[in-house]
Amino acid sequence: MTKGTEAALAALKEHIKEIYLLGSISGILGWDERTYMPRQGAAHRANQLAYLSGMIHEKLTDPRVGDWLSQIEGTDVVADPLTPDAVTVRELRRAYDKQTKVPKELVEKITYAETIGQGIWVEARKESDFGKFLPQLEKMIDLKGQYAEAVGYDDVPYDALLDDYEPGVSTKEVAAVFARFRKELVELVKKITSSKKKPDVSIIERDYPVDRQHIFGQAAATAIGFDLSAGRLDITDHPFCSGTGPGDCRITTRYNPNHFGQAFFGILHEAGHGMYEQGLPTEHFGTPMCDSVSLGIHESQSRMWENMVGRSRPFWECFFPRAQQVFHTALAGVDFDDFYFAINDVRPSFIRVEADEVSYGLHIMLRFEIEQEIFDGKIKPSELNAVWNDKFTSYFGITPRNDAEGCLQDIHWSAGLFGYFPTYALGNLYAAQFFAKAKEDIGDLDEQFAAGRFDELLSWLRKHIHSQGQRYRANKLVEVVTGKPLGHELFMTYLKDKFSPLYGL
Amino acid sequence: MTKGTEAALAALKEHIKEIYLLGSISGILGWDERTYMPRQGAAHRANQLAYLSGMIHEKLTDPRVGDWLSQIEGTDVVADPLTPDAVTVRELRRAYDKQTKVPKELVEKITYAETIGQGIWVEARKESDFGKFLPQLEKMIDLKGQYAEAVGYDDVPYDALLDDYEPGVSTKEVAAVFARFRKELVELVKKITSSKKKPDVSIIERDYPVDRQHIFGQAAATAIGFDLSAGRLDITDHPFCSGTGPGDCRITTRYNPNHFGQAFFGILHEAGHGMYEQGLPTEHFGTPMCDSVSLGIHESQSRMWENMVGRSRPFWECFFPRAQQVFHTALAGVDFDDFYFAINDVRPSFIRVEADEVSYGLHIMLRFEIEQEIFDGKIKPSELNAVWNDKFTSYFGITPRNDAEGCLQDIHWSAGLFGYFPTYALGNLYAAQFFAKAKEDIGDLDEQFAAGRFDELLSWLRKHIHSQGQRYRANKLVEVVTGKPLGHELFMTYLKDKFSPLYGL
Repeated sequence: MTKGTEAALAALKEHIKEIYLLGSISGILGWDERTYMPRQGAAHRANQLAYLSGMIHEKLTDPRVGDWLSQIEGTDVVADPLTPDAVTVRELRRAYDKQTKVPKELVEKITYAETIGQGIWVEARKESDFGKFLPQLEKMIDLKGQYAEAVGYDDVPYDALLDDYEPGVSTKEVAAVFARFRKELVELVKKITSSKKKPDVSIIERDYPVDRQHIFGQAAATAIGFDLSAGRLDITDHPFCSGTGPGDCRITTRYNPNHFGQAFFGILHEAGHGMYEQGLPTEHFGTPMCDSVSLGIHESQSRMWENMVGRSRPFWECFFPRAQQVFHTALAGVDFDDFYFAINDVRPSFIRVEADEVSYGLHIMLRFEIEQEIFDGKIKPSELNAVWNDKFTSYFGITPRNDAEGCLQDIHWSAGLFGYFPTYALGNLYAAQFFAKAKEDIGDLDEQFAAGRFDELLSWLRKHIHSQGQRYRANKLVEVVTGKPLGHELFMTYLKDKFSPLYGL
Repeated sequence: MTKGTEAALAALKEHIKEIYLLGSISGILGWDERTYMPRQGAAHRANQLAYLSGMIHEKLTDPRVGDWLSQIEGTDVVADPLTPDAVTVRELRRAYDKQTKVPKELVEKITYAETIGQGIWVEARKESDFGKFLPQLEKMIDLKGQYAEAVGYDDVPYDALLDDYEPGVSTKEVAAVFARFRKELVELVKKITSSKKKPDVSIIERDYPVDRQHIFGQAAATAIGFDLSAGRLDITDHPFCSGTGPGDCRITTRYNPNHFGQAFFGILHEAGHGMYEQGLPTEHFGTPMCDSVSLGIHESQSRMWENMVGRSRPFWECFFPRAQQVFHTALAGVDFDDFYFAINDVRPSFIRVEADEVSYGLHIMLRFEIEQEIFDGKIKPSELNAVWNDKFTSYFGITPRNDAEGCLQDIHWSAGLFGYFPTYALGNLYAAQFFAKAKEDIGDLDEQFAAGRFDELLSWLRKHIHSQGQRYRANKLVEVVTGKPLGHELFMTYLKDKFSPLYGL
């Protein structure tokens, strides 16, 4: 390495460490905003966050970043693309190019539209009035189209949007996997729906005192490996996980005193995100090597712990007796199999965030298809609600009675988050691939879960995924870890193996 | 105003707004560090805070600040020294000059000494070993002496230190007031100590369940005017109040399940600080006009609400029946007068933070005298513990049995906070002056308190003190508001009026 390259690399790393530091500060402010901030603090908090994000943007688009990168690219620093420094250069180049390609006025227009869009969406959903949201939706689609053009893409404009959340994964690739996946999933949902066997869900809708839910949920998060000396569990309206730097990752939940599962599985889900953050290699803090790969990989961790572990039979062989002791009234005399069936109820429903593990994927694919068709110009924004209802009926066999339980249900589009939805389903697919490989490598995972042991699975994830930071992009990581490309097969196998006996298919 | 002046003023204000924004962000991180941060987050938090304080220092010492100030000084902007812009220029000049006069290496040496000093002090206090702390104390005194020389002073080096916490107040001025104050206070303490009448403090040392203390204390803070929609009350080890920008001021407390008063009066104290912060004129955020005057003025607000209001007979005429309902076991059958006497127990003791309202001032004056003598070179650091014990005996009539309950008890000196202590006593003196004037202006404050009404006092404080920001320096503010200079007389009158009947003097 020449002196010049060395200096450029050192300067670049010093510079991006500041960006990560500022990001972690924003992280705490954002967490506080959604947990403990008093109501009247909102306006000033918005100023603080805008100031920080302005500073981050300024640093990321600093022309010196481009110069440093140019000085390093092509040198022996990046000869082996898997070294931490090469990863830093690769990811910074991506971020720098993206951020500098978008004109400042467009960024400002999008930010403004996102802010007012969410307010309009709240009103429109409340009144179930798609027409009220439509002008704003059209504006946002237009702006995000301009954004895609500015950023550029290989194949279709939607590539540029998807790349914001799942870097390096193409629309074509996802569409191909989802097409095969959808066909099988629609069939499985139909079979389950027509089954005579139905769980008695009233078991989990009894009185579950909130203080006991909190203690029980926190203990379960600890049991699977979420480290409370390096994290917290708090209460919020819309649960999230916020990694705010080494040694500090905070998860949140929301309690329903008349439902066992909402908070409990939510906690396991967020703990899955949290354990990923807690497993990032902190010695690399301030570089992409101490950052998560993508939303899809993040979701693979949360979904695995929530569903593949947390809703599994062996997990409850360990936890059901404890649950009966803590919720001694609600679960008195309840049969293990009935409880296990109740927490695995599959029932087509209109609202994505309330969907079960099986039908969830259909909610996502519907959104993914609509988003593509919009950015391909195949449908107009004004047709969106009609298209939604048609597709929904064909996938689920039920039709939304209004747009509030149809195309107005999610906040994402009002906030400009086109290309975000597919990552939820990708998370399930990645999770199934990782989980199958972990089972193969470790062997007796079921027996371990039943004995309350989750450390071997966590160690496996730490080694193969968490500690890797952004060494690989998502699709590459799946191949490296499992030896197979992204596919739907293992997730379908997982679903069939689990739900066939439950529903007597 | 010329175009050039206008541009300089606008640039200066834009620039210092960023400093205040960064300060408010540090405020939230500091609050979080002391309330909710998980243990393992400490190292990264230190990095975040160091990064922010470096940025603040850099902005404050930016040579452009000096240029802008020079362009504005002498123009019509500062013609009326009481306008917000003139106040901004005055306070920025002070901060800029102070910060730029101190060599960077000295700042770094002091910061380093503060950090390791606190660790050494913790150990030394634990072992009650003054000798162990002495080398570090000598180093800190030497560094702070250098700091005073660098900053400059009118009369004695201690002026430069005091000025950090009580801007514009001179050592001479404080020393003169304290000399008269001490004489009378020592006498009053002696009288009270020799009185046969003693309260039964066991009343307030019964079982006071923490959850009830929290609800009762929070309700009392709300009753006196602390706005929980623009603030919070949380639990911590060493209670503090943290104003973190418009609409957000957070107070903290610590509960002792076997003591009524520690948390309760602590909450009123912090609420007093908090109401000051909540009363700052937010339209001026980002300038000294939305900042508190000094530590002494801040303390005048906390002490007034804690003691002059919160430990008063009319306050408890309203709150004692409520306390009996909430703490229905501990306070069953307790007589009002006995309770009122118990919460106003005066008893010379070794530890400042546990001191009563009367003898508290002696703890402060002892420290103030020692600090002056050290920086005047009249005593050597190695003599400090002997001097402490002699003075203590003469003021309190009791002698510390070891240095842990003597000169090692406070963290301040280990953290370089010389000149800080006097502000605690100044707070009491200012408070008595403000309170007497408020009573004069409002009239029936006692009747209002007994009826649970605190709004008129708060409005008075809002108008005369809180809304003024840094328009006046502390000593000027007292004169403007009360028509009298800083003095000890009204505080002594307050003490005598209150404690003479209690102790039958």
